[in-house]
Amino acid sequence: MSEVYAARRARLRERCAAAGGEAALVCGDANVRYLAGGAPPGAVLLLGPGSDGDDALVCVSDPFVDATGASRPGDGLAVVVLPTPEGDPAVAAAERAAERGVRSLAVEEHHLTVARHRAVRSVAPRLRLGDLGTAVEQQRVVKDDEEISTLRIAAEIADQALGELLESILVGRTERHLALELERRLIDHGADGAAFPTSVGAGPHSGRAGHVPTDRRVEEGDFLSVCLGADYRGYRSEIARTFVIGASPAEWQIELYEQVFAAQRAGREALAPGAAYRDVDRAARVVLEAAGHGERVGPRIGHGVGLENDEDPRLAPSAMGKLDACVPVTVDPGVHLPGRGGVRIDDTLVVRPEADGGPELLTITTKELLAL
Amino acid sequence: MSEVYAARRARLRERCAAAGGEAALVCGDANVRYLAGGAPPGAVLLLGPGSDGDDALVCVSDPFVDATGASRPGDGLAVVVLPTPEGDPAVAAAERAAERGVRSLAVEEHHLTVARHRAVRSVAPRLRLGDLGTAVEQQRVVKDDEEISTLRIAAEIADQALGELLESILVGRTERHLALELERRLIDHGADGAAFPTSVGAGPHSGRAGHVPTDRRVEEGDFLSVCLGADYRGYRSEIARTFVIGASPAEWQIELYEQVFAAQRAGREALAPGAAYRDVDRAARVVLEAAGHGERVGPRIGHGVGLENDEDPRLAPSAMGKLDACVPVTVDPGVHLPGRGGVRIDDTLVVRPEADGGPELLTITTKELLAL
Repeated sequence: MSEVYAARRARLRERCAAAGGEAALVCGDANVRYLAGGAPPGAVLLLGPGSDGDDALVCVSDPFVDATGASRPGDGLAVVVLPTPEGDPAVAAAERAAERGVRSLAVEEHHLTVARHRAVRSVAPRLRLGDLGTAVEQQRVVKDDEEISTLRIAAEIADQALGELLESILVGRTERHLALELERRLIDHGADGAAFPTSVGAGPHSGRAGHVPTDRRVEEGDFLSVCLGADYRGYRSEIARTFVIGASPAEWQIELYEQVFAAQRAGREALAPGAAYRDVDRAARVVLEAAGHGERVGPRIGHGVGLENDEDPRLAPSAMGKLDACVPVTVDPGVHLPGRGGVRIDDTLVVRPEADGGPELLTITTKELLAL
Repeated sequence: MSEVYAARRARLRERCAAAGGEAALVCGDANVRYLAGGAPPGAVLLLGPGSDGDDALVCVSDPFVDATGASRPGDGLAVVVLPTPEGDPAVAAAERAAERGVRSLAVEEHHLTVARHRAVRSVAPRLRLGDLGTAVEQQRVVKDDEEISTLRIAAEIADQALGELLESILVGRTERHLALELERRLIDHGADGAAFPTSVGAGPHSGRAGHVPTDRRVEEGDFLSVCLGADYRGYRSEIARTFVIGASPAEWQIELYEQVFAAQRAGREALAPGAAYRDVDRAARVVLEAAGHGERVGPRIGHGVGLENDEDPRLAPSAMGKLDACVPVTVDPGVHLPGRGGVRIDDTLVVRPEADGGPELLTITTKELLAL
């Protein structure tokens, strides 16, 4: 597995060198994990010049004390500096880079605060600081087979947790307890944790994106919407389903469900290499607009998943860019009618070419309207 | 309750004006909640000039569309700008401040990234940007009665959850399941959630600060250390206890427990208005140093709690400053012996003058060494 990380670092080095940067300081937690494997929150990665061959990753608390083994001039420099309560690892890493003769350092200006940036500059005043921008985030968009396999397991775990919940009695239980039970089941099935706070909305709360579970109990006749995901080895799946409680759904429930389902299917079917992000959004959005729900659709119809629950790309009206093969995304439209409730349907899929059978569905729980 | 927030904003305005700033842009999540009450993560607060009397707080998604009611020139300007998927609320807030004729704006440079800071500057190039520093964090250190009452409930909830766990069978259960059960019980007793990820360490994992629960099962003869806290209305308690599993502890366990207990007691007894942060750390640390554990004690012996689990002050060897009355802190020393396990004992207390009976203990679960 360590060659995978070395190859990722080599790609970033190339990109950094092409932009005239000598070394890069990576501070975003997910970015550090992507390039170095397991690293705790707050760790930073200093990536110096070097060819593939001599990339030697070391993980240190104090780059001056611990990294001497990898500090021979000419070595590929890839040092993970761990956070300590006493100092900023970004500052320690920059200081070390300057000591080793690095003259220009690209930092992630969208992760580093102004105060930390100033501290970096003040310990290494001769170091020319540039902006690495979202280079690592962009590199993370297309996933390799290993990453997709991991996501596949994360999706399977979420399917299992959800499936078990559906077999239990739901009426009379609170949103909070259902959410907690789902999170416990995620862990029972091997998740490292929930990918994000599990959302359970009953009755008037159903269909709301990111609804925080309350003490509202599930009642006969409710819509019940559930959104959960598993974190498996750092990779995060996402699934949402909406059910109806009781023997037979009301007519408005059937109608709304069909509208959201049709929108979600249209979004899924629009996933293809080369499809513009905004066109995927559009495909789902027009269905809900035609049904008169244009104002109730959220600002986007899906997003990338991977080491973060919500990462590039955004499938939104103003998003720029096109899908590639092997990009995992969610398609998650929903409509919430104030006071009544609503529907949200969300899958995690991987973009695949038509020749390979089109988009690969990772979350396979049925999308029929189940009456529980 | 709204007068409380208005009074906090008035204090910050005074401090800001004294430093020559006309308006302040608050971006830290806990800082925004402190000054404006409930606000979702990512919201910012724009605090303009104004006297106490005309402070009119409005909460908007788009400060240009929604805040017109409060935008009459001369009004006290206090606008919470909510995050939207399409734009940065800090940028929108700065733009609005500039439109209203504000010339200097103090921002939280330790919360704002370099990229966001640049975006703020580019939409309002004539606005002079200063640094608010940790003014709001400093203001949050001393708590009012209402805050302390809320923390008292948060501590009580954690005590209840822990107490129930102790009545159940522990042997054979995994660290992960015990942690999940504790989190469920926190919510059963009225918490909005766990204050931080619950840590349960059995056997060789016991006593490690921030240990992430594993599938290790509790066995006879283990030390079992548990660290948890409740989030109640935004305020976060913290408690840790260590138990021994089985009929009678080994001699090394009794000895280690007594050492950590003595250190924790010394730390608690050192809490007093006017005591230097470092002296509290010292009081506990010397006990463990004398027992030969100097190298194994963490970098600090306690920290403030409130809207964040870990906030100012830090009770550490290099910390500068002195305790005030009504400052809630933890005293949480621990020792971990590699391969064997260890002990951590942690309470949440409020600093009170001797005349009022000295430090007020909020987490009241017994600190006897229980054999379970």
